[in-house]
Amino acid sequence: MSFDSTIHDKAIQLTKLTYEITGAAGSGHPSSGASLAHLVSVLLYQQMRFEPMNPGHPASDRLVLSEGHAVPVLYAAMADLGIAYRRFDGPDDAEGTLKPMTHELARTLRAIDSPVDGHPNPALGFPFFDAATGSLGQGLSVAAGLALAARMDGLGKRIYCLIGDGESREGQVWEAVDFLIDHGLKAVCPVFNANRFAQSEAVSVQQSADVLVAKLEAAGFDVRDVDGHAPEAVAGAFSAHAQAQHNPDAAPVALVARTVKGWGAQSQHGNGHHGTAPTGEALEAALAELDAKHKQLGATADVKLQRDLLPPEKPGPVKREQMPAFDEACRSFGQEEVLAKGVLATRKAYGISLRALGHARGDVAALDADVSGSTGSASFKKDPELTGRFIECRIAEQNMVSAALGMAAGGKLPVVSTFGKFLTRAYDQVEMAVLSGQPLRLVGSHAGCTLGPDGPSQMALPDVAWFRSFGTMRDHRGHPGFYVCTPADAWATHGLVAAMADHPGSVYLRTMRPETEFLYGPGTTFTLGGHEVLNQGRDLLIVAQGYMVHQANAALEALDAQGVDATIVDLYSLPFDEEALADLANDHDGRVLTLEDNYGGGMGSAVADALAATGDGFTVKQMHVERLPKSGADADDILAYVGLSVDDVVREALGMLEL
Amino acid sequence: MSFDSTIHDKAIQLTKLTYEITGAAGSGHPSSGASLAHLVSVLLYQQMRFEPMNPGHPASDRLVLSEGHAVPVLYAAMADLGIAYRRFDGPDDAEGTLKPMTHELARTLRAIDSPVDGHPNPALGFPFFDAATGSLGQGLSVAAGLALAARMDGLGKRIYCLIGDGESREGQVWEAVDFLIDHGLKAVCPVFNANRFAQSEAVSVQQSADVLVAKLEAAGFDVRDVDGHAPEAVAGAFSAHAQAQHNPDAAPVALVARTVKGWGAQSQHGNGHHGTAPTGEALEAALAELDAKHKQLGATADVKLQRDLLPPEKPGPVKREQMPAFDEACRSFGQEEVLAKGVLATRKAYGISLRALGHARGDVAALDADVSGSTGSASFKKDPELTGRFIECRIAEQNMVSAALGMAAGGKLPVVSTFGKFLTRAYDQVEMAVLSGQPLRLVGSHAGCTLGPDGPSQMALPDVAWFRSFGTMRDHRGHPGFYVCTPADAWATHGLVAAMADHPGSVYLRTMRPETEFLYGPGTTFTLGGHEVLNQGRDLLIVAQGYMVHQANAALEALDAQGVDATIVDLYSLPFDEEALADLANDHDGRVLTLEDNYGGGMGSAVADALAATGDGFTVKQMHVERLPKSGADADDILAYVGLSVDDVVREALGMLEL
Repeated sequence: MSFDSTIHDKAIQLTKLTYEITGAAGSGHPSSGASLAHLVSVLLYQQMRFEPMNPGHPASDRLVLSEGHAVPVLYAAMADLGIAYRRFDGPDDAEGTLKPMTHELARTLRAIDSPVDGHPNPALGFPFFDAATGSLGQGLSVAAGLALAARMDGLGKRIYCLIGDGESREGQVWEAVDFLIDHGLKAVCPVFNANRFAQSEAVSVQQSADVLVAKLEAAGFDVRDVDGHAPEAVAGAFSAHAQAQHNPDAAPVALVARTVKGWGAQSQHGNGHHGTAPTGEALEAALAELDAKHKQLGATADVKLQRDLLPPEKPGPVKREQMPAFDEACRSFGQEEVLAKGVLATRKAYGISLRALGHARGDVAALDADVSGSTGSASFKKDPELTGRFIECRIAEQNMVSAALGMAAGGKLPVVSTFGKFLTRAYDQVEMAVLSGQPLRLVGSHAGCTLGPDGPSQMALPDVAWFRSFGTMRDHRGHPGFYVCTPADAWATHGLVAAMADHPGSVYLRTMRPETEFLYGPGTTFTLGGHEVLNQGRDLLIVAQGYMVHQANAALEALDAQGVDATIVDLYSLPFDEEALADLANDHDGRVLTLEDNYGGGMGSAVADALAATGDGFTVKQMHVERLPKSGADADDILAYVGLSVDDVVREALGMLEL
Repeated sequence: MSFDSTIHDKAIQLTKLTYEITGAAGSGHPSSGASLAHLVSVLLYQQMRFEPMNPGHPASDRLVLSEGHAVPVLYAAMADLGIAYRRFDGPDDAEGTLKPMTHELARTLRAIDSPVDGHPNPALGFPFFDAATGSLGQGLSVAAGLALAARMDGLGKRIYCLIGDGESREGQVWEAVDFLIDHGLKAVCPVFNANRFAQSEAVSVQQSADVLVAKLEAAGFDVRDVDGHAPEAVAGAFSAHAQAQHNPDAAPVALVARTVKGWGAQSQHGNGHHGTAPTGEALEAALAELDAKHKQLGATADVKLQRDLLPPEKPGPVKREQMPAFDEACRSFGQEEVLAKGVLATRKAYGISLRALGHARGDVAALDADVSGSTGSASFKKDPELTGRFIECRIAEQNMVSAALGMAAGGKLPVVSTFGKFLTRAYDQVEMAVLSGQPLRLVGSHAGCTLGPDGPSQMALPDVAWFRSFGTMRDHRGHPGFYVCTPADAWATHGLVAAMADHPGSVYLRTMRPETEFLYGPGTTFTLGGHEVLNQGRDLLIVAQGYMVHQANAALEALDAQGVDATIVDLYSLPFDEEALADLANDHDGRVLTLEDNYGGGMGSAVADALAATGDGFTVKQMHVERLPKSGADADDILAYVGLSVDDVVREALGMLEL
């Protein structure tokens, strides 16, 4: 019983500290933490292989707290173990030296000048965490991504993931479960914390321990159904997982841990205590109950808890070269005919660029959600040298994006592609990556309304507005939360894929379905934040992105016939150089016509923001999709339907000049 | 065998027509349709109770095609049965008279001037459909919503839902499965079409028929595992579902139908044909194979297929009164102290308003995702007269929003609440509702950065940018795709809840966590598109929303001390009256300071859009969140951290005036 009594002692210590720090903060979720106290104790003091002062060590085991609100119990353990955090003297100093976590620091929980945030957040200075959590149901996918990265590095580490029973209602959890099976990611140990209560009431029978066990077994797991407060049983289940990890005949192991919300303090049991931290007398009462529990259980630290040694790091040299230029890439893949033809859909160009990137860099992986044939990523999948780094995520975008976050946290460069419309499915996950300080490279295909016959359920239309909103803020490293890039041709696509790979922040690249003519050649360099002036005129500045650059080009002749000399700017990046654009606009008497084939709030709005801030007099006429599109035979049909035909552009341009 | 031979005959007819119409369009997914041909035949010709010329009849059985790309086989059946569509002479004539679908019309599939769109879309003129599908994995949730609406009306109709095996990878499908069990929605008959192939390759073993059966059984379904091309077996399974529907002792029934992708034409079998429509010789070959199959099976229409009679409609009179005013509502609920205090968080005011709305209107239902205690909707849940119309959706936002769409399609007024951040989880579903032409009323709580200790994983920050993008287009009825409303106080919240309920389009209402003082009283009317001038000045126009209206008010005194006389506009609605705002801006020499506590691309950007379009000279300085927030004790701490303190506002305002 000595292991048991020792873990009880530890669990009660951590629980008490959890109540103390949430009490000091006046908020938090201590009763969730109490339900995890034994699991956390067994993991951090016995099972996990890591060095407290080097929590980011690449070979160390990882812990993903999917139910992020329970984090105070982890802070308690981190304080007890002296797990390192980065000095955090303020917002501009997140990259300081590592220092051991202390009880004192833990008591600053949730204060504005403390890195001890309300939910786990590695970007605030805790390399023990891999991802920000707190929006529920995402952790298991992150764990899967960490396991994929470890596999690429030949590392045998284990990744534990603590998942709340209530949050396991999120479908993403089950996407992750299927993903683990598909990819044989037995390094991941999913632990369902069945404490029976969510925020508002008891969890559904569908998230009861019994049904969770049945669901996991149906999915193919060897489920260990344990009392989550029985140390030996918990440790045994973790050992079973560790043994199964490298045994090819063993099914993957998952734990369903039956726990008590508010364990150890009857006054905090059950429903009605979620998200409330007792203070004053209630706090004293809870602590007294825990002391009584300690006595009742005969808890005593009579065994020295010891973790296994950290597994050796195996840092293989990773190939990292510059991507070849587009023409070179085409030639090296035997696709010279593309260059001769001078026409290629940007989604197909992306396929070539992604493949070139994969050859240039050994840390690149490509993820797609069953549409690789449409997005272009099939070129990577079909290349025998790259196919091992292609991750088929099937029709489950949420899991795909969170897994990419996990891979990025594991030091890889995952590139994610699906239809831009379907990426919407994972916007919450995208935002959690921004919070985590991990870069995402997202490629949304079939962007805008030009995709044709499949219709609007496949079109990305409010996507520019959403991603560019992140372009208006700066992440922990000072980068825009996202760059949004809409290349107008194959060369621009290739240049922006290269820029995306080199950039340490997040980029959303939009590609299109229709075939489009080349506008550029080897002489042009594409940069995040850049733009290109395509025709130098004087009467009117036309600012366009993507397919609409071609519409603008097509309008030039008709405008010329009316005596109008227009300048075209291909504004392929948001954010952009606002000063340069304002200067250009001023060169045209402040007359600016913006063209984009998505809903408003996007590129044109970014232009309006920039110009309206200057205080000069500008007229910004924005053309964008203002009605629901529908199916049509081709881009021309649809653009005419939504009022973005070349004729429409000409009419608006002339109207602006009162012609 | 005569039922079998008759259904074979019908299924082959429909499959042939499917190939013909997709061949004419040059695209589509006929092989998916072929896999469904028998299921569709049994449903539409035998099982479902409906009137072809009145497909929107409220008592009729419904069919939700979750795998929307398979729609051509449904169009084929609709043409054969003469199921009515609305005359569609163009975009502005979607509300015309009903006419029977014809083969001729079916052959206009995917043309720009045809209502026969690439994916199901009721808004284009097909009342047989309840929701636009095509973004996968959403149909079963819509079916659940239809069932909830039917239950509110006491209607015994059945709702069939056809789900692809590939799309059942989407976690939302499993959220819906749990939801059906939780709410005992046995009217819904989930049919999994296990045709074994997705777009890029065979489906995962996790979506194989065997594992689907195991998963559904684990979730609590009585699963009928049938050959989807065996008519008697299929009909028997549907009958079992119908019998179980009203038998309290029976488990809910689901079907797993083992089917063949490209059934009937060997040349179209299996992988590699998804999303490609054979034309020319390939089409001829497929049709010939189907003819041979017809002969081989001895298919012949030797039995008259007959549907059961349509169940009687039970249109109960639904209470629909005006909501009482806020003060009246407070008094009627015994909450006079709120009025005396003059301080109330808008999320709490929402609770009062929602409750008042529930009493005023019998068609209102409240949906929440386990956070009713935080969003305010608990007031509805706890009211004995309303609790039956409270739908606990648990932690599964995607299912919640699609279910709300289904309820709206069923004629109800569902109001959905959760944290604004967590609504992000369902943006794809939100967009599908816009496409469907069904209004959503969404309430996102804890909006902006003021929520305090819980930190940024709970904050809605790019949400204004996303929803306002829909405000830049118009839906089928000519309404903005969404109104985004951010009330600054309890009175405004109440007024906007009333406006939201009365409006036939979609509204996103943002509420906040902190307690805020009343700014308004009984004298003010709040309208979608409206704004309020709070202080009439002359030097500077401050445009603010939500919490930032209070910051602006607090800044007034300091500005006044510097001799600056500022006007404050509470711009609680986007879109808004752009002309009125431009006039106001002109009255202040074009100096506009915008204040919002979310990322950019939101309200300030909408103001910049409006003013930059006028051609007059404006200076629009936008203040918004420009860095990642973190936890803090309260709103003041966080606003100071992100540069939106009252001092920051004063400094910017003075800077604009060069003071």
